[in-house]
Amino acid sequence: MWTYSQNTFQKNDIVLNGNRFMTGNGYFGYRGTLEEFGKAEQTACILNGVYDQFEDRWREPVNAPNGLSTTVSFCGQELSVLSAPVISHKQTLDLYAAVHHRKTTFACGDARVDVEAERFASQDEPHLLCMKYAVVCSAGGSLAIRTGVDGDVWDINGPHLRGITYEQNGDQLVVRATTGELGTEVVICEKLDFPALPPSAEIMWNGGFREFRFQAELGRKYVFFKYVSVFTSLDTPGGSPDQAAISLVRKSSQARYEKLKGAHSDRWSMIWQNCDMEIDGDNEAQFAIRYSLYQLQLTAPRHSNGVSIPARGLSGQVYKGAVFWDTEMYMTPVFALTDPRVARNLILYRHRTLDGARRKAREYGFRGAFYAWESQETGDDACSDFNVNDLLTNRPLRTHFRDKQIHVSADIVHAIRQYFEWTGDFSILLEGAAEVAVECARFFYSYACYKLDRERYELLDVVGPDEYHERVHNNAYTNRMAKCALETTLKILELVLDRFPAEHQELEVRLGFAGELDRWREMKDNIYHPQPEPETGIIPQFDGYLSLEDVAVKDLKSRMLHPNEYLGGGSGLATTTRILKQADVVLMLNLFPNDFPMEVKKRNWEYYEARTEHGSSLSACAYAMLAAHIGRPDLAYPYFMKTATVDLTGASRQFVGDLYIGGTHPAANGGAWMTVAFGFAGLSVKGEMICLSPNLPSHWSSLVFRFQRKGQSFFVRITNDDIWVSSDIDNSQDACFEFADCGTARCGPGQSVQRKRDELPNAVDIAPEHLQTKEKSESPEHSLHSFA
Amino acid sequence: MWTYSQNTFQKNDIVLNGNRFMTGNGYFGYRGTLEEFGKAEQTACILNGVYDQFEDRWREPVNAPNGLSTTVSFCGQELSVLSAPVISHKQTLDLYAAVHHRKTTFACGDARVDVEAERFASQDEPHLLCMKYAVVCSAGGSLAIRTGVDGDVWDINGPHLRGITYEQNGDQLVVRATTGELGTEVVICEKLDFPALPPSAEIMWNGGFREFRFQAELGRKYVFFKYVSVFTSLDTPGGSPDQAAISLVRKSSQARYEKLKGAHSDRWSMIWQNCDMEIDGDNEAQFAIRYSLYQLQLTAPRHSNGVSIPARGLSGQVYKGAVFWDTEMYMTPVFALTDPRVARNLILYRHRTLDGARRKAREYGFRGAFYAWESQETGDDACSDFNVNDLLTNRPLRTHFRDKQIHVSADIVHAIRQYFEWTGDFSILLEGAAEVAVECARFFYSYACYKLDRERYELLDVVGPDEYHERVHNNAYTNRMAKCALETTLKILELVLDRFPAEHQELEVRLGFAGELDRWREMKDNIYHPQPEPETGIIPQFDGYLSLEDVAVKDLKSRMLHPNEYLGGGSGLATTTRILKQADVVLMLNLFPNDFPMEVKKRNWEYYEARTEHGSSLSACAYAMLAAHIGRPDLAYPYFMKTATVDLTGASRQFVGDLYIGGTHPAANGGAWMTVAFGFAGLSVKGEMICLSPNLPSHWSSLVFRFQRKGQSFFVRITNDDIWVSSDIDNSQDACFEFADCGTARCGPGQSVQRKRDELPNAVDIAPEHLQTKEKSESPEHSLHSFA
Repeated sequence: MWTYSQNTFQKNDIVLNGNRFMTGNGYFGYRGTLEEFGKAEQTACILNGVYDQFEDRWREPVNAPNGLSTTVSFCGQELSVLSAPVISHKQTLDLYAAVHHRKTTFACGDARVDVEAERFASQDEPHLLCMKYAVVCSAGGSLAIRTGVDGDVWDINGPHLRGITYEQNGDQLVVRATTGELGTEVVICEKLDFPALPPSAEIMWNGGFREFRFQAELGRKYVFFKYVSVFTSLDTPGGSPDQAAISLVRKSSQARYEKLKGAHSDRWSMIWQNCDMEIDGDNEAQFAIRYSLYQLQLTAPRHSNGVSIPARGLSGQVYKGAVFWDTEMYMTPVFALTDPRVARNLILYRHRTLDGARRKAREYGFRGAFYAWESQETGDDACSDFNVNDLLTNRPLRTHFRDKQIHVSADIVHAIRQYFEWTGDFSILLEGAAEVAVECARFFYSYACYKLDRERYELLDVVGPDEYHERVHNNAYTNRMAKCALETTLKILELVLDRFPAEHQELEVRLGFAGELDRWREMKDNIYHPQPEPETGIIPQFDGYLSLEDVAVKDLKSRMLHPNEYLGGGSGLATTTRILKQADVVLMLNLFPNDFPMEVKKRNWEYYEARTEHGSSLSACAYAMLAAHIGRPDLAYPYFMKTATVDLTGASRQFVGDLYIGGTHPAANGGAWMTVAFGFAGLSVKGEMICLSPNLPSHWSSLVFRFQRKGQSFFVRITNDDIWVSSDIDNSQDACFEFADCGTARCGPGQSVQRKRDELPNAVDIAPEHLQTKEKSESPEHSLHSFA
Repeated sequence: MWTYSQNTFQKNDIVLNGNRFMTGNGYFGYRGTLEEFGKAEQTACILNGVYDQFEDRWREPVNAPNGLSTTVSFCGQELSVLSAPVISHKQTLDLYAAVHHRKTTFACGDARVDVEAERFASQDEPHLLCMKYAVVCSAGGSLAIRTGVDGDVWDINGPHLRGITYEQNGDQLVVRATTGELGTEVVICEKLDFPALPPSAEIMWNGGFREFRFQAELGRKYVFFKYVSVFTSLDTPGGSPDQAAISLVRKSSQARYEKLKGAHSDRWSMIWQNCDMEIDGDNEAQFAIRYSLYQLQLTAPRHSNGVSIPARGLSGQVYKGAVFWDTEMYMTPVFALTDPRVARNLILYRHRTLDGARRKAREYGFRGAFYAWESQETGDDACSDFNVNDLLTNRPLRTHFRDKQIHVSADIVHAIRQYFEWTGDFSILLEGAAEVAVECARFFYSYACYKLDRERYELLDVVGPDEYHERVHNNAYTNRMAKCALETTLKILELVLDRFPAEHQELEVRLGFAGELDRWREMKDNIYHPQPEPETGIIPQFDGYLSLEDVAVKDLKSRMLHPNEYLGGGSGLATTTRILKQADVVLMLNLFPNDFPMEVKKRNWEYYEARTEHGSSLSACAYAMLAAHIGRPDLAYPYFMKTATVDLTGASRQFVGDLYIGGTHPAANGGAWMTVAFGFAGLSVKGEMICLSPNLPSHWSSLVFRFQRKGQSFFVRITNDDIWVSSDIDNSQDACFEFADCGTARCGPGQSVQRKRDELPNAVDIAPEHLQTKEKSESPEHSLHSFA
């Protein structure tokens, strides 16, 4: 259950496989392409946090020269899956060790040539990419192996690399380039060890490549190793990326491939120890959750708090390689419970980019921090006012993602709140989180308006998560999140004042918020958030939502004039209807489960589920979580599987207008974990209490996972009959648990608690006919390729 | 200079001529079609204020059966301009007498037949339409005259008339029908007098028609008269429209045609006495202003305060026959100064429809009165959320005319203010205007939001006059007008309290505003309105306007994919640019000339003029007035002529999307008078002072007109050298005048004041190159047809 593989090569799958077979380590992501591929096949080594703008095109992350580029020719015939006859082919990803492997047997006349390659993006050393490459021929013949660093990279809005140079330095190759906009130096150093190279071999250098030519012997395995280092001048302020790159490959070569791979896999083993989830009774779900976690973890910045996780991970330049609210709402919580150092980095990235958010607030005439919809290294918003093209008129479409999606600032404070609630890490407050929260509270106060007539604060003219309805008033999600942001900020400042009065004073001197606290309190207490309609229990997503046309998703789609037509924007088909892009009220109900009674949550799930088009990969997990929470894991399950398999099936939306949005989906990956932990296991905190209120899918015989709270590690096992919790022997404190309706328990370090499960009290009925409309989502739209 | 005529018949002009040759009396409008025309030629007798909705189509005014329908055949050949050979044809409108005349000579074999018809819509008796019809043949032959009431009427969204019946009642024909929606009875009664009918004539009835057949004698003139009355059950509550209709034609027939025509023309003569403007030195302008006034006056409801003037007058069913803000901003002021009883009716119409405005406010969650964008008889908004079709996708386009154009409520209060300032008529305050103002102030207070951060009131999410930019914040016009509405309401209540304390108390008991006065005062004092940018002096039309794309009108138009493509709406081409549909800031500067220094007004005129597409016929006069005000009558003149000739040239927009919007333009007609009086003559009031600050076009040798203030009548003559004012001998009080920079004067009844004009102090320079861009508007786009 740890291996993903494909046993055939299909040209049509090249792009999707580039996503499916990703490797990466948070510093860079290396697409799951084959060694003989180039830019046409979207080979990429995307550098996290290194951005460039070419002319007036969109800024996007830099794709580094490809240090693994390798082609083999036998008897003059190039052995590439793109051109040569393939006898067998297998591409494999070992999720546990995070190692990519391919083996292809080519026919070459009567001979067969096996090409085998293994690679990993070191989790132990984030600047290092290693490859082991082997060729075996079934007959003697001339073999040519051309390998090096391919500087002709794929770009969406490039080119970004200028003045690329190739310097041969003994058995090292140093490739240098400079980005056009900011002059960031990018250095790739390749060291190649080819111990089995016949002494008679010719070696010819040509630019970034060297070619080894020799007579291959029948059956002999020619193995070489490549150590590729990647540095930029951003990594070595004041120093030289060249030296760092050269030094790293030298050191790596000395350490040898297998040892490096061991160190890498050990790191991954630790990652898995913290985040793995074991599901018995459902192999598909078991594999899918692990695969999701693999995709998420390979993007996690463990090396730096200067970067975060872009919306399409490190799988390319889609969405400008930008960081969205996805990170805070669907990824940070996963790390807060499984690897808090990563969550800490993700939050501190927002502190590093606070000035950009301040600039954006000022740009629109507000105070505080208006965080970017698309954040890059400075926090300035990379999003333009025209983010989609109208396919029907071929005109750029004015969208309001940038200027109206104010909830991002609240989402960040919510992530801080969640991080702090789970980790109890006070230090983050002083290191930036308090400042971020203050500026976000300030922003919401300056954005809000007070309706004297109604004696309440309102947030007018916003875009909520449901982007099909732009410029709405009092979006339920946004208003509730803003209230939470104000409350959290006030709470943080109280905590800081209480524990660190000197730091509180320093913060107050610097930010000058003393006069604002009463205002924020007043706004928190008097901000309007939409309430359930008395008769139906439906919470209107925004003012006037319930007066819009009520049309079925399929009927709306039948009105489309182009299959990729954007449904939102100024005149989009969904804008005048109740059809949502994604969970909005439902997401809010997940985040604030105590706001409304179970019956209201149930009714809103039913109501909005029938009206959600799921045009965002963020949507499914919100429906899955709430369905589990309302006691309907049967309804949750298809949404969970859709979320957890999104990067396997490739069934996500690939185009908005004519904009390519393919790639990996770390938020959906994180959402899969959240669905299992927060949804199926019902894990939450209530003050000091850790609560478990499970609602497992009925065919799961057990669910096992670990999580951390306030520096303590816990193990959970849930079956249909009981809940079993144990506290790690290394923990330092007792923990208090509450088990759905089966009471509470204290659990000391090294102790376990086991409880029989009774009927859960929070299950509610959903009309059976509802289930009948779910055919499509009952099973993932595309079957998975294979399970090991 | 009082006659408009055409000397040829052109099929292509049928629709435009229907507008150009309009007759009417405020009760109904009769299109300027020929007697032999029917529905295909858009013959219509539109009843003011009688609306009907067919199925789910748009509500629109009822077109009554056509009581003038007449065709003549000679020797079996039908004599219609549509089919018979025309030797000569002349269609004439006598503006002074308001009489329509046509004379056509048909060839019929070797013979010639003259058909001559004259009609008027009685200004003396609003239910009466009269026609005199004459036929002369140049040879003997069989003549058939078919005349009657044509119930097969033209409708845009009909049919509206059900169960139409034709009852022959002696020499009268009574035609009855009932509207579908509300069951309003519509009765047309025709009485025909044919004194010269040969005794041998055969008379054959057939439905609504009778046919006279006889042998015509060479050269003999066969004349008959038709008296057609129109009543609806709305006119005779509790009574019978039949009896009223029958009785009126009987009485009319007894009075005889010429006497009725005399009474009618006498009324018009009085109208002209009050409103005429004499321009020496510019025949085109002289004719155009008279023609404009004719078109405006024929729509004026003198008979009732239950109706107003629709945006397309009484020329058809376009724009649902609805009353727009046009009336208050471009028509009521004309009547306030020339015929206050009409202005009074127009204002009281808004009181009659106040409940509809209250309902609309409640519908959107506000208090007070949110007046309709398209008001019909109840004041409920006839405008739908989808008012235009997108020609590129063939989809209905969501527009925000209805839900966001809040300035209408302020416009109405402004009209009350202006009416009261000029007439001093206290009675209107008690009869409804105070109540209207209170409800409008209440509405603005409930709509506004207070930005605590900026300590000011703002009006977010509105549509200003420039409808190409929907859902803007702090539209300069809207905010300023709202401030004015609050101020006016407070002032009105003070006046009422002061003069009529009992009525004030009654009003307060009924409306309960006592607790709100301080709030309104607070809002009036603290409502934000956009100020000139410090460096450029430009007043941003709304928040963020100056960040929009700055593109030339012609460049924007070059992007159009369809000639009638709507430039506004969700994704319209203008929405993301600075191109305006119509004067917005410039209109505001006209209304509040003392808000900003002359230099600011000049700069904003220049700036916005270059960016205005003039997609509304309301736009040109606002530019004309302000240009005159800033001392540039040369720039004003082409806009004045565009305004004043709009119904002659037919050069206005005929389609928005696929929506036909042709017809007459009473607001432009009124705007022409306003340009002359308020612009070129510089007429205004300052407290008790009447100010004149003329800026005549240089080629005008003199301008003469009359106006009324507070029941006193004045005569003004302006030349390039002097200003001459006289106070009517019948006036009861002295008046104070202020003449630009030549001091003040007191003028008693029967007295005159004459002042030499010096250089006017408020002229400002506008760059000469600016003039060069005006080629198109320097001369009206189509030359006028003829002047008598």
